[in-house]
Amino acid sequence: MNYDFFAPRQIHFGWDRFQEVGTLAASLGTRALIISGSRSLESNGVLEELQSLLSRAGITSEHIRTISHEPEVKDVDHVTNILQHHSHGAGDFLIGIGGGSGIDLAKACSAMITNRESETVLDYLEGVGQGLQLTEEPLPLMAIPTTAGTGSEATKNAVISSYAPAFKKSLRSPEMIPDLILCDPKLACSVPPEITARTGMDAITQLLESYISSRAQPLPQALSLQGLKLAIPALPLAVEDGSSRTARENMAHAALLSGIALANSGLGMAHGVAPPLGTHCRIPHGLACAVMLPVTLRANRSVCETQYAEIARHLDPGLTLSDAEAADAFIDQIQALNDQIGIPRTLSELGVTPEQIPDLVAGSRGNSMRGNPREIPDEELTQILQGLL
Amino acid sequence: MNYDFFAPRQIHFGWDRFQEVGTLAASLGTRALIISGSRSLESNGVLEELQSLLSRAGITSEHIRTISHEPEVKDVDHVTNILQHHSHGAGDFLIGIGGGSGIDLAKACSAMITNRESETVLDYLEGVGQGLQLTEEPLPLMAIPTTAGTGSEATKNAVISSYAPAFKKSLRSPEMIPDLILCDPKLACSVPPEITARTGMDAITQLLESYISSRAQPLPQALSLQGLKLAIPALPLAVEDGSSRTARENMAHAALLSGIALANSGLGMAHGVAPPLGTHCRIPHGLACAVMLPVTLRANRSVCETQYAEIARHLDPGLTLSDAEAADAFIDQIQALNDQIGIPRTLSELGVTPEQIPDLVAGSRGNSMRGNPREIPDEELTQILQGLL
Ligand SMILES: [Zn+2]
Ligand SMILES: [Zn+2]
Repeated sequence: MNYDFFAPRQIHFGWDRFQEVGTLAASLGTRALIISGSRSLESNGVLEELQSLLSRAGITSEHIRTISHEPEVKDVDHVTNILQHHSHGAGDFLIGIGGGSGIDLAKACSAMITNRESETVLDYLEGVGQGLQLTEEPLPLMAIPTTAGTGSEATKNAVISSYAPAFKKSLRSPEMIPDLILCDPKLACSVPPEITARTGMDAITQLLESYISSRAQPLPQALSLQGLKLAIPALPLAVEDGSSRTARENMAHAALLSGIALANSGLGMAHGVAPPLGTHCRIPHGLACAVMLPVTLRANRSVCETQYAEIARHLDPGLTLSDAEAADAFIDQIQALNDQIGIPRTLSELGVTPEQIPDLVAGSRGNSMRGNPREIPDEELTQILQGLL
Repeated sequence: MNYDFFAPRQIHFGWDRFQEVGTLAASLGTRALIISGSRSLESNGVLEELQSLLSRAGITSEHIRTISHEPEVKDVDHVTNILQHHSHGAGDFLIGIGGGSGIDLAKACSAMITNRESETVLDYLEGVGQGLQLTEEPLPLMAIPTTAGTGSEATKNAVISSYAPAFKKSLRSPEMIPDLILCDPKLACSVPPEITARTGMDAITQLLESYISSRAQPLPQALSLQGLKLAIPALPLAVEDGSSRTARENMAHAALLSGIALANSGLGMAHGVAPPLGTHCRIPHGLACAVMLPVTLRANRSVCETQYAEIARHLDPGLTLSDAEAADAFIDQIQALNDQIGIPRTLSELGVTPEQIPDLVAGSRGNSMRGNPREIPDEELTQILQGLL
């Protein structure tokens, strides 16, 4: 038993607790620079309410940017530039509100605004650029997730994309864990069913991949067991009835746990293949993870039977099956969940063609794939992806 | 589902990782002021090794104080005074190394050195004195636990005693959670069996009381399930063979989890009665909790049957009992554990007399007792304590 565990220092979770944003933000500073992650936060009045709640708590604020796609190198560089023009120094802090895209952009900018050895975030990303390390503390950051998915509010990395050249790479440092998380599950009520389904499966994939990861740790495993027990029954309900309070609460809590778990334990094959599926085939992150999850569980079954059985027994304490039977039943249960909420079984339904497979294989060898509990050689990965066409 | 969750930002856990103390401490400052919690850390060379490891990492250090009893108001005031004479300001940080006493003293002093509205910690304690609040950030603090028990390395409070007048009260603030935990289970190998038993039962009591607390939260409950599953089988092994690596690892991890759990969820009747048993009858904290645990479980059985059964099924996934049977079996299991490791069944074996019961009842109404899942009126508590004579 040997681990380093990093956690967000403060989590504030609860239905309608968005109302407390002013009081909570006061512990971070006096002037909020806001980065948001979807146009609908503008149209449904959430951003306006945010600024008014901050103002009532004596905090001035500026809405810097809304991003409606997964953040790219040029977005980070551009928004960091704007922030530098708007930042006055002492008392300034960032608020990232939105799904993974908005929060990742805020996290990357909070780091880049204080780390200026290069003008572009490219030089700080893993595996591309100059490989610079963060040396200065990021600007204080509050994360307000509005979709229950990536868990980015609790992780130490921001995923940054590029399309020419095509890559998705992380800016990563324990200092990038947001200082304060305000998680109000009510904010997710307006998320449409299709996005609820795929972001929810992202959280479930993260809970599962971190549990079986080669870098798995006991504390995150405890969180994964609870997250899976809550999320697996809650997700179909959240997809079916977006206003279900219990379903939204359980999914928001499970997504948060998945972020803490993955930040400490790493991930696996599904998250290894998701980045090239994003950059080569423009498949959204959660959807890519969801399609890849059943096949990932099957590919790791030979070394993870005991863990699958542990999870199955935690989900259903009355289970009287053997380990082997419980593991099979669990994989079937995940496939059935995908089917129930409308996740396609194949990558060809998402437009992937046989010609793209070599690029997908080559692009999958990042930090996530290194967490997979067994090594998946190129030939095997090629076969797995061909089997999904 | 509504909660605030505070966690230590950095945990570094592993056998023999004490060797890394210099590298880890470098993130906190350049000059360490050390408070230690037992004479044996001096005699067995651990303190000397600590100072030498710090020195090799370029960190100067001063050993300020060793405390070999649970810290009192006068200890905190006195050590804060010494610290003020030794502290130079920027770059200074504290290291608390030891069991709960040493770490609690370090936590209290880290807060009192920067909060000077009163000259005595008494005025900052809950329920006594002036009720002052901490307004300034404490000095950075690294906690190095050497017994697996209180979990003080992960909590936001320090328990401070007084004997005339008699009380045990907390100095409490989320800011008091240590900035960095270095948990090396090997350091506990020299803890004798009797202290291993009672500090271990403290951790188990904390895992259980936080799980059933009226302020119970989902995330700490996930930690408690894992902590109990590891600790209940490990404790008799650690008592029997103090050098057992697995037993010491599991107990150290479980104690850490218990600290995170209690800091967020509160405790119950056992921890309510433990302070007056300490101040009126001089019974060490862990021993008091251990003796009180079975009777606490019984007193709450009527409202906690489901939770006891949940825990029992997590400990033994094959269990086919009904909730009622599983709950009874679980209480019996805890009583048998106490018996096995030599915890007395009665308070009279620890010197408690019938005349002391009114004081014990009166002294038990603090923050812990308020977490108990059902209210225990004075008459009932009197009967419970009489039943333990
Ligand atoms: Zn993901
Ligand atoms: Zn305790």
